[in-house]
Amino acid sequence: MLKNRLWIAATVITVGISGVVMADTRQDQAAWMEGFPPPQGSIIRNSDRDFFSFPKLTWSVCHLRQLLPTKAVSRGLAAPVPFEYRPDRNIDQIEFRRSDTGETMSWAEAYTANHTDGLIVLHKGKVLYERYSGCLDELGKHAIMSMTKSIVGLMAEILIAEGVLDEHALAGELVPELKAGAFGNATLRQILNMTTGLKYSEDYTDPKADVWVYNEAASPLPKPPGFEGPRSYFEYLQTIEPEGQHGEAFAYKTINVDAVGWIIARATGKSIAELLSERIWQKIGAEQEAYFTIDSIGTPFAGGGLSGGLRDLARIGQLMLDEGSLNGEQLIPKDAIKSITAGANPEDFAKAGYDTIPNGSYKSLWWLFHNDNGAYAARGVHGQTIYIDPTAQMVIVRFASHPTPGNAANDPTSLPAYQALADYLLN
Amino acid sequence: MLKNRLWIAATVITVGISGVVMADTRQDQAAWMEGFPPPQGSIIRNSDRDFFSFPKLTWSVCHLRQLLPTKAVSRGLAAPVPFEYRPDRNIDQIEFRRSDTGETMSWAEAYTANHTDGLIVLHKGKVLYERYSGCLDELGKHAIMSMTKSIVGLMAEILIAEGVLDEHALAGELVPELKAGAFGNATLRQILNMTTGLKYSEDYTDPKADVWVYNEAASPLPKPPGFEGPRSYFEYLQTIEPEGQHGEAFAYKTINVDAVGWIIARATGKSIAELLSERIWQKIGAEQEAYFTIDSIGTPFAGGGLSGGLRDLARIGQLMLDEGSLNGEQLIPKDAIKSITAGANPEDFAKAGYDTIPNGSYKSLWWLFHNDNGAYAARGVHGQTIYIDPTAQMVIVRFASHPTPGNAANDPTSLPAYQALADYLLN
Repeated sequence: MLKNRLWIAATVITVGISGVVMADTRQDQAAWMEGFPPPQGSIIRNSDRDFFSFPKLTWSVCHLRQLLPTKAVSRGLAAPVPFEYRPDRNIDQIEFRRSDTGETMSWAEAYTANHTDGLIVLHKGKVLYERYSGCLDELGKHAIMSMTKSIVGLMAEILIAEGVLDEHALAGELVPELKAGAFGNATLRQILNMTTGLKYSEDYTDPKADVWVYNEAASPLPKPPGFEGPRSYFEYLQTIEPEGQHGEAFAYKTINVDAVGWIIARATGKSIAELLSERIWQKIGAEQEAYFTIDSIGTPFAGGGLSGGLRDLARIGQLMLDEGSLNGEQLIPKDAIKSITAGANPEDFAKAGYDTIPNGSYKSLWWLFHNDNGAYAARGVHGQTIYIDPTAQMVIVRFASHPTPGNAANDPTSLPAYQALADYLLN
Repeated sequence: MLKNRLWIAATVITVGISGVVMADTRQDQAAWMEGFPPPQGSIIRNSDRDFFSFPKLTWSVCHLRQLLPTKAVSRGLAAPVPFEYRPDRNIDQIEFRRSDTGETMSWAEAYTANHTDGLIVLHKGKVLYERYSGCLDELGKHAIMSMTKSIVGLMAEILIAEGVLDEHALAGELVPELKAGAFGNATLRQILNMTTGLKYSEDYTDPKADVWVYNEAASPLPKPPGFEGPRSYFEYLQTIEPEGQHGEAFAYKTINVDAVGWIIARATGKSIAELLSERIWQKIGAEQEAYFTIDSIGTPFAGGGLSGGLRDLARIGQLMLDEGSLNGEQLIPKDAIKSITAGANPEDFAKAGYDTIPNGSYKSLWWLFHNDNGAYAARGVHGQTIYIDPTAQMVIVRFASHPTPGNAANDPTSLPAYQALADYLLN
């Protein structure tokens, strides 16, 4: 660690630019969980119903393992493969127009406005910009939330490309326990593209919404005496009833991904945590172990349970940009990534009403923008993203703890900033 | 990881001896938590009262983080420093006499008899023997239980050697919250040597024993409604009442170490997890992140909460043997280790009745054998040990899941085996 810091410092000096790895304190953050003991009012416990809501979220996004049981994603034992640094201090001054108000904003202003915890920019595989704030530093790990879905989608596409999984197979064939429920006659492709017809409501304002039963089933914390509901992802998935027809429209429902996780585990004999370690984390020169939150029987939360380091997520983004090759070695099949970047049908997507992503689509648990640059992304609530622009040869990873879960709240100050940076790099 | 395996294989081939890193399946183990889902009867949940008793223990020792919230001990981001390998396949045939029955036993027989999960032997810093079983492999981490105490003792001795802590200071001066209770007028030295007079019973057969209140205070899992007891280590430590006089006799009470953890945190502004990362884990070329179990406010369990990789614990042992230097760099003060190896008064120790360690003493949370070789050890229930023999220049780390917690059950088939190996290396 000390050596690594020195190495970075030396790099910075070499290129004559300071401020590559910046760390600062966000003004919007209270001092949670500091002190021995932390003062009353600053303690966050897993028994707090609001531990994953703003403002406690600003601490919890970096410390989920301190609240919940987890499963490691080993990086293996080999040396990390460090990035090259080519810091560009002009980036903070890049200006763009907010897509909501039309006002001009700088990249640096957007960094703050989006409650960013960490942001890294790669161009042609080299680090141009790297900055940490709030609860995060280079040794920390951040919840990537629904970006987990995209990582799981990538693993599914790898298995499809290798012939281990058939995208046309029905979930009920792949996992017989799913046969009787709504998933039974959905194809793996429909599940991966979230065009399944499932009776499942994620409306948090409705106390009878399905998501509450799902959350309780997913929790690894002990159940109250007499609890009779499902208490694992696998048990819960079997209770889902059909609603509408599979294949008709895109509807973003997290439970699809837990079904994918089960299908992968059954097909490979490995949990998605083990498979992710073997197939990706141990191969990309990752710096840090990652981890999944799990349910009470150790099942990793495929729909959103991964936490990892900023640079390691950037390594995944670069692997996508490079179509699966690293240092001349094809780590994962090119076809796996081509299937994702081909995108899905924007007409199916349009009905879902994502106003900040016009012309978008959702394929294999990735978001496609279908813009001139062919950009696509992994996205998670509260502002998480891996944004990949193949034309600009740019990868951005941002971790954040925006007060509003939905990314529509930060897209107007994010997506135009990414495009402005792409334009800058292309000029 | 792949590279590492190849590297080891290459080493083995180079020296012309197979079987350095062996992995095998223990006959005494059921298949816990395997399958998607695991079959009924093989599931281990944190709501199971027996999750840390044999036989479930055989899985739980490698998977505590899947049951409980944890805090990372970062290894930093630098490359691991690999060991050199000089495998010696004669070791398995070394014979010794059991200290209980007097029967002859081989090293290989003892490996199995002791329910070993992993064992590594270093001689002059090079690996002679390394073997994994049961739930453990080279990418896994194992609960080191009360060996955590010794690691905490080492950190305390570092701070004493550096003048950050005064061994003669009273706990009530170092942590004012401890002033009113039994710890208040105990010196740091008395606490480190466990010669405090504390009213605290660890008798698990007594349902009113203090250990049950302690366990509940220590648990990071949510409390039942209406719970009014202490719910952190810090709260619990303040409730301890005196019994007898400090400084009169050695009495092994885990809570002493939680007091040391608090003293260290207050003095340094860092939890023992952070300090261990900064001062040791990031400096010894560790291969893997380690982790602590924690209480509900994030306090690492100083008395027994650390889990780590077999080789990384061997790196600690070697650092002790080399009096704090690694590759010519003095990582920690020599005096810190000299204070430990000087030992304490065997007369104080004798009263405690550890029949398998005659003439022993307990100093700074380490066990001294006061034998001809000057051997000393970190020890944890169910067979955990770091055994350091300065005369034979030998370090042994063993992880195990012996059915019986107390090491008196495995010492007769362990300590003579270590001595026999030392004799072999010295001849």
